[in-house]
Amino acid sequence: MTSTPAWPDLGGIAYGGDYTPEQWPRETWLEDVELMKQAGVNLVSIGIFSWGLLEVREGEYDFSWLDDVIELLHANDIRVDLGTPTASPPAWFFAHHPDARAVTRDGVVMGFGARGMASHSAPAYREASVRIASELAQRYGDHPAVVLWHVHNEFGVPVGEDYSAHSVREWRLWLQQRYGSLDALNAAWGTAFWGQHYGEWDHVGAPAAAPSVVNPAQRLDFARFTDHQLRQCFIAERDAIRAHSDRPITTNFMANQHNGCDLWAWGREVDIVSDDHYLWAADEEGEIGLAIAADLTRSVGGGAPWILMEHSTSAVNWQPRNVAKRPGEMARNSLSHLGRGADGILFFQWRASRSGAEKFHSAMLPHAGTSSRVFREVVDLGAKLGRVSDIRGSRVHADVAILWDFESFWAQDLEWRPSEDVTHDERIRAYYERLWRDGITVDFALPGQDLSGYRLVVAPAQYLLSRADADNLNRYVEAGGTLVVSFFSGVVDEHDAVHEGGFAAPLEPALGLTVEEHLPLRQGDVAEISFAGATYPADVWQEDLALTTAEVRGTYLDGPAAGRAAVTRNVHGAGAGWYVGTRPDAAGLAAVMTAVYADAGVAPAGLPEGVETVRRHGDDADFLVVINHGTETVSLPASGLNLLTQEQTEDKLVLPGGDVAVLRQPHTAEGGGH
Amino acid sequence: MTSTPAWPDLGGIAYGGDYTPEQWPRETWLEDVELMKQAGVNLVSIGIFSWGLLEVREGEYDFSWLDDVIELLHANDIRVDLGTPTASPPAWFFAHHPDARAVTRDGVVMGFGARGMASHSAPAYREASVRIASELAQRYGDHPAVVLWHVHNEFGVPVGEDYSAHSVREWRLWLQQRYGSLDALNAAWGTAFWGQHYGEWDHVGAPAAAPSVVNPAQRLDFARFTDHQLRQCFIAERDAIRAHSDRPITTNFMANQHNGCDLWAWGREVDIVSDDHYLWAADEEGEIGLAIAADLTRSVGGGAPWILMEHSTSAVNWQPRNVAKRPGEMARNSLSHLGRGADGILFFQWRASRSGAEKFHSAMLPHAGTSSRVFREVVDLGAKLGRVSDIRGSRVHADVAILWDFESFWAQDLEWRPSEDVTHDERIRAYYERLWRDGITVDFALPGQDLSGYRLVVAPAQYLLSRADADNLNRYVEAGGTLVVSFFSGVVDEHDAVHEGGFAAPLEPALGLTVEEHLPLRQGDVAEISFAGATYPADVWQEDLALTTAEVRGTYLDGPAAGRAAVTRNVHGAGAGWYVGTRPDAAGLAAVMTAVYADAGVAPAGLPEGVETVRRHGDDADFLVVINHGTETVSLPASGLNLLTQEQTEDKLVLPGGDVAVLRQPHTAEGGGH
Amino acid sequence: MTSTPAWPDLGGIAYGGDYTPEQWPRETWLEDVELMKQAGVNLVSIGIFSWGLLEVREGEYDFSWLDDVIELLHANDIRVDLGTPTASPPAWFFAHHPDARAVTRDGVVMGFGARGMASHSAPAYREASVRIASELAQRYGDHPAVVLWHVHNEFGVPVGEDYSAHSVREWRLWLQQRYGSLDALNAAWGTAFWGQHYGEWDHVGAPAAAPSVVNPAQRLDFARFTDHQLRQCFIAERDAIRAHSDRPITTNFMANQHNGCDLWAWGREVDIVSDDHYLWAADEEGEIGLAIAADLTRSVGGGAPWILMEHSTSAVNWQPRNVAKRPGEMARNSLSHLGRGADGILFFQWRASRSGAEKFHSAMLPHAGTSSRVFREVVDLGAKLGRVSDIRGSRVHADVAILWDFESFWAQDLEWRPSEDVTHDERIRAYYERLWRDGITVDFALPGQDLSGYRLVVAPAQYLLSRADADNLNRYVEAGGTLVVSFFSGVVDEHDAVHEGGFAAPLEPALGLTVEEHLPLRQGDVAEISFAGATYPADVWQEDLALTTAEVRGTYLDGPAAGRAAVTRNVHGAGAGWYVGTRPDAAGLAAVMTAVYADAGVAPAGLPEGVETVRRHGDDADFLVVINHGTETVSLPASGLNLLTQEQTEDKLVLPGGDVAVLRQPHTAEGGGH
Repeated sequence: MTSTPAWPDLGGIAYGGDYTPEQWPRETWLEDVELMKQAGVNLVSIGIFSWGLLEVREGEYDFSWLDDVIELLHANDIRVDLGTPTASPPAWFFAHHPDARAVTRDGVVMGFGARGMASHSAPAYREASVRIASELAQRYGDHPAVVLWHVHNEFGVPVGEDYSAHSVREWRLWLQQRYGSLDALNAAWGTAFWGQHYGEWDHVGAPAAAPSVVNPAQRLDFARFTDHQLRQCFIAERDAIRAHSDRPITTNFMANQHNGCDLWAWGREVDIVSDDHYLWAADEEGEIGLAIAADLTRSVGGGAPWILMEHSTSAVNWQPRNVAKRPGEMARNSLSHLGRGADGILFFQWRASRSGAEKFHSAMLPHAGTSSRVFREVVDLGAKLGRVSDIRGSRVHADVAILWDFESFWAQDLEWRPSEDVTHDERIRAYYERLWRDGITVDFALPGQDLSGYRLVVAPAQYLLSRADADNLNRYVEAGGTLVVSFFSGVVDEHDAVHEGGFAAPLEPALGLTVEEHLPLRQGDVAEISFAGATYPADVWQEDLALTTAEVRGTYLDGPAAGRAAVTRNVHGAGAGWYVGTRPDAAGLAAVMTAVYADAGVAPAGLPEGVETVRRHGDDADFLVVINHGTETVSLPASGLNLLTQEQTEDKLVLPGGDVAVLRQPHTAEGGGH
Repeated sequence: MTSTPAWPDLGGIAYGGDYTPEQWPRETWLEDVELMKQAGVNLVSIGIFSWGLLEVREGEYDFSWLDDVIELLHANDIRVDLGTPTASPPAWFFAHHPDARAVTRDGVVMGFGARGMASHSAPAYREASVRIASELAQRYGDHPAVVLWHVHNEFGVPVGEDYSAHSVREWRLWLQQRYGSLDALNAAWGTAFWGQHYGEWDHVGAPAAAPSVVNPAQRLDFARFTDHQLRQCFIAERDAIRAHSDRPITTNFMANQHNGCDLWAWGREVDIVSDDHYLWAADEEGEIGLAIAADLTRSVGGGAPWILMEHSTSAVNWQPRNVAKRPGEMARNSLSHLGRGADGILFFQWRASRSGAEKFHSAMLPHAGTSSRVFREVVDLGAKLGRVSDIRGSRVHADVAILWDFESFWAQDLEWRPSEDVTHDERIRAYYERLWRDGITVDFALPGQDLSGYRLVVAPAQYLLSRADADNLNRYVEAGGTLVVSFFSGVVDEHDAVHEGGFAAPLEPALGLTVEEHLPLRQGDVAEISFAGATYPADVWQEDLALTTAEVRGTYLDGPAAGRAAVTRNVHGAGAGWYVGTRPDAAGLAAVMTAVYADAGVAPAGLPEGVETVRRHGDDADFLVVINHGTETVSLPASGLNLLTQEQTEDKLVLPGGDVAVLRQPHTAEGGGH
Repeated sequence: MTSTPAWPDLGGIAYGGDYTPEQWPRETWLEDVELMKQAGVNLVSIGIFSWGLLEVREGEYDFSWLDDVIELLHANDIRVDLGTPTASPPAWFFAHHPDARAVTRDGVVMGFGARGMASHSAPAYREASVRIASELAQRYGDHPAVVLWHVHNEFGVPVGEDYSAHSVREWRLWLQQRYGSLDALNAAWGTAFWGQHYGEWDHVGAPAAAPSVVNPAQRLDFARFTDHQLRQCFIAERDAIRAHSDRPITTNFMANQHNGCDLWAWGREVDIVSDDHYLWAADEEGEIGLAIAADLTRSVGGGAPWILMEHSTSAVNWQPRNVAKRPGEMARNSLSHLGRGADGILFFQWRASRSGAEKFHSAMLPHAGTSSRVFREVVDLGAKLGRVSDIRGSRVHADVAILWDFESFWAQDLEWRPSEDVTHDERIRAYYERLWRDGITVDFALPGQDLSGYRLVVAPAQYLLSRADADNLNRYVEAGGTLVVSFFSGVVDEHDAVHEGGFAAPLEPALGLTVEEHLPLRQGDVAEISFAGATYPADVWQEDLALTTAEVRGTYLDGPAAGRAAVTRNVHGAGAGWYVGTRPDAAGLAAVMTAVYADAGVAPAGLPEGVETVRRHGDDADFLVVINHGTETVSLPASGLNLLTQEQTEDKLVLPGGDVAVLRQPHTAEGGGH
């Protein structure tokens, strides 16, 4: 590709969802387009699961029905996001290529009847998926209705790691490329431990089920390999499409829901970033997880506008208890995505399926039909989005970055870590949640990237940290940045080997300490720390810190490290490095972050409880999105034209419980960040 | 078969149990028959696990020991229920036919050493089981001691679904028979969802382990196929026996314990219905589960007397904590079965096995021998049963039916339903329990059967409901019946496809509503409803109801549907249809049912707490069985001769804690039902 | 072997750990030996996981690096415990012999990348392991530095049972040897139950995954077979070494951590018993579990001094939460092992591994290096052990024995026992803990051994008890011994068959009762017992006892056996047999044991809470080890020279919280026991 294809011009925010006409009789198609127009739908994703109905036998195609669907949509001014159906090869494919079925760690060969069972490394699968993608691109690549390509679906879900013979063969080639020699592999994996030395490449296998814990460096590399293989599948399809079409190409990520793909690398391969997001129903503040996903999606795309490719109008169907959204919640969710950079709001799916595994998933048009709360809200949301179309192309800027490194997560999530109470997700959420409640917008970032634009960088869970990346963080602090590092960070290098010098040693310049010993607490044990004159409970973990230049700012009052440093601050060059060695409760973390903010020159927004704000900066104007997640009316200082109501607000915005405002405001200087 | 063979004439209630002389030396046999006579045993089941000792090598038989056992029993006037040993083929069978081993969903081939590992679809197994059944029937088919045939053992336990190659082959044939064309199968299964279209029959597989949830219509059909295959095994053996013997043939069901067999269909194939029942020890009111099982057993047999083929004298051995029965409990259990239609009370087993997996299962003759509480109670029960022999042949009549549809249970129990807190068993038990406490006898029924004899029909968990069956329920109400439907009913059709018009749409005439949206609650959340002037907690589920003609009778006070209808009543023709959209606590359900009873003209019996009564109607007399499950003496209005004590009761029956009475009373008009 | 090779002469208590120079560059080796000398290390275990680096291709060796390591150690007066690397065959081995991989019960073939995946029955594995052991013995068998052989590593962990074809073949041969005829096998296994009769040896398989519970006698025999096969692997290596070396040979047990090896049998095969022990971090009194392990290790070695081959300086890495040891805890643990008979204190491992599955396991030299608490304590412990070297060769004597029978544990732990709340470990710990708190030293013993030296024998969990062993216990009581038996003991014989006469019948002479019925309680139910005038809660279990000559000493106040005997005492000959039919709380058990002690003439030591004492008897002196596990200073009556401080104590030892003393005292008469 020589240049990034243009964003599809839809005349406004993209609005719509997955559309599966193949599940319905043709008379329903006519009803569908009428109702889509009523709802303001301007973009639908089609063809995602249609392989078997398009390539009806190997190499034999029937595009007639798809022709008709696209023409019908085109005639009604509804644009098409055309899917390649490669997430679900047809029954005939697996019958002809039984070796192309994915295999689990335990050696179970996956069966047909669900979806996503192909081996990402099987040549037959690679060939067949490029073939169908090419056929589609040749036929529809310059159709005026087709404005976007949707390759595959949620790469890595439900099958990521594959232990088939094809995968093992490709894995060895990937390792040869990565390491060059077996000596290098033996060194990187530390095969001297437990007698795992390899003398021939052919003896290296996938990390399949074994009697005990498999070499963690091998498993970490297998995660990298899996991500690489999936991405190669995407690239092969993308390039096949590009040969016939100049429309932008995306694939739908699952930011903060599936961590098997290194989205930083994927973000570089797509023309437009798109993401699927589903609330976790058991979380009574699902809007915070949503914000994490949206910020991560924006960040991996370098801050450019993105498309929310799927979310739900109400309940999903695959959780233990699929709580339905309450009135207004869908709009709040949608506008939060919009505020965090989405220029498209799409759903799974347009019309609820009567059959199959997801019939209890909500849709824009639910089983209950048009005389339903959900459909009324869908129509209303379409109208609302129509009023905020000027927001398109504007960008979010952040003064704060939280480190999010997929390789570190893959490594930390392996077995036999010091405490199973410590997970990457938990710490990320805790720090993010503090910043969210303080109304401070964040980007996510990699530890090795240019961080100079940020006043504050937070590392809640950077277990794996290469020396080069640590040096980058040290330089960031030295140059005046403020860094906060949570416990169990900087522990291993890129091969999951403990750093020479001990835990956190590479960060010693910034932090002024190393970690002598991890002191995980027993299940349920809670200790206390003192910080800034107050006392807070803190659980799960303590550490025995060896301070060099750091000053003690918080102290353990009890527990295995009683009397020793719990929170420290270190001046390094023009900046400061903070370290938090335990898991304080929310109030304790708030106290620590208050002190950190002062160092970094960052200020909480002072929002009423449950109110979320985020600002997009356009060329001519800013757009302040204000969401009241609570049930009570709130007021907060803000001016501008509320695009949703077309009412002008002077100084004080009064926002009823559950409502949203989008205020057009004068253009401001950009904040920090990217 | 041209006519149903006669009930075995045992001169009284059948009494005895499984007998395994092959586990003991011959001198023990002599002791056994002496003790059997002491205990009043008149029927024993033998040969159930004796294949390897009868067909000692393929086609080579040794019946000598069985001849001797049968002669010994005959000589002592103990009748024989002769088992076919096909639930446990011999080791040589699997050595010769390794392909006849059942395979799990994950592809694990079952090993020898337990029991029940044969593939129900393997030709070798079908042939061998018919052969041994024929041999037994030829040899013993007209032996005067043999009064009943016991085919196999607990069909479907421990192996129901089988994923072997034999099973897959038969499954395709069954599907071809069911659907005729692949087009029909694709439509029924909704294969357009997730790209599962089939173009050739050979591509259709069993719903084996897959990366995600397998097509639910495919799984539902596989459950139907599994039931069909098991039943074909029974039919093949039955017909082989019938060629040589005119004695009645049964197989022991596991009503309310194993739901893999559609007992309504099985009930049509056996000459006499028999059932195994074991208390669930963790349930402190196991007598209610027992009553469900007994009523279901009677119902699937069309109300005819049946045989309790197995229950326990005390503890079972396969539960997490195998609580022993307390003094008198075995008699209360036995008489409850009797009151609910059993004309035979048998146990697993006569003499406790010293070896094997079930050595800790109680028996009529326990390890402790004759000087034990259990054996004394066995002797006493034998005497008691001797006194109530006139009850034989009498029938139970019920005014109330609870719908129990195995296909609906199979469908509801699949994955990805709206809430894992909703199970068919739980709602059935809750409604049954209410009726049990109110002393109201119920039948179980299918939604499509003639229900006109019932004043009240309750549908606690009718998730799957075909339009034809829904029409039957609508007609039932229109004709004057009272119907109560609990939430998550009428959702899908026979292919697990959501009904057109939305959830519960087919029942709109009877209920005067449809269900717009399911609103499952989070784990542990409890809301309140108001009903008839009082307030009750209700959890797990709410629904957004769209009322057409129904009137609101109960309202949600909080939760996602706060302010909306929780309980409704609809007048339809001459009857009324009630709907309960949530899970009220026991008091709330009692309040609702009190209102329902008034509609239906059904009256609670007003029994003291813990007292169970059930009435059998004979040609000349009624028999009222009264069981006091409590520890205190109770009195209740009742007259008649207590057959157990031979005491005449006038007006008031005084029954000590833990005791049972069987009152002979004048013949009354039959109630409703069948 | 004609005579036991001599203990290695190290000039003092053995001190050191596993050493893995193959994981480090040569310059690190030089640092290692310097630091070892600083820490007082005199023995290291090497080569345990070095197969692939020694036999670099099949039959091709490279011993050069090992030569250098041994020479370096020798030059620095550090002795070598030389491992055979057979716990982890190289990658080439499995590539050449894929059939030599172990297979799980479900048929999953184990993959490479962890360790311990070889089939113990594969001829290729047996040959290869003997070959490498021979090569090592030939080369180093008389090297002056090599003072001990360390065969394999933790036999049975992580793979014990193996279901490969090689295992099944060997299993049949083992059964033929054990039973002689199929008739005997059919009788022993009770194959008449569930129709499992075998007509040909080739039909007998391993107890692989089956649809229901597999024959428990078969599973028990498979556990015996597994133990036998593992031991044969040890014996083959041992004999191969002995052909070339006269140094003592050991293998490291896992007493009380892995129960798959019958350590009584293994104890007879090794020259010196050695053991690995790791605290269970979730146990806040892990020192009690440690004491059990140490006493068991000493007991299986017949009371001879043993080597603690591995323990941890601080945290382990494979538990859910790997709690680090607190200051002083490592020394207390080490001295407790020493007091209980260990003449060697070694660790896993010398230097923490940077890579691999166990990088978070603590070490003598942690990641944090020499300037760490752990290394300082390691140096201090080395010095302390140097001061107590006279203790070598002295022995522990006990008046009390607790029965510990691996075969009974294997049998009790099978499926379908009366209550899953009853486990062998739990009851052993409860009784042991009572004796530990009372300062009474115990041996572990087999029920069939000579018990005459003990005043008291406790059987907390003797589910399986052969009639011969029961007779031994009866004779022990008759001759004046005191026996305490806890519930669910004496239930089955050596074939897991219930004893004729009922539960506990073989112990009727000693106990004066049999058990008529087990009465497990529901989960969470707690009943009360009265004993000696007080009332105690007791849960999990009750029994219906049939007393013959026993007198009732405690009574159930409620629960299923309310009013009946809970605790009994029976006079038999010159002794007394106690029976405890339930699980009293700690206070209740203390009350019972107080009465038992009086019978047995055993007296509690009256120690302050948290203080542990144990005495070793030497030829010239006794050594009293006193450990204060509490945080407060305690004083207790004791005299002697504290070898650790060289201070003389007169009458009263004052010991600060967390401290240890080793008092040299005049030689006393030996106690009872062995």
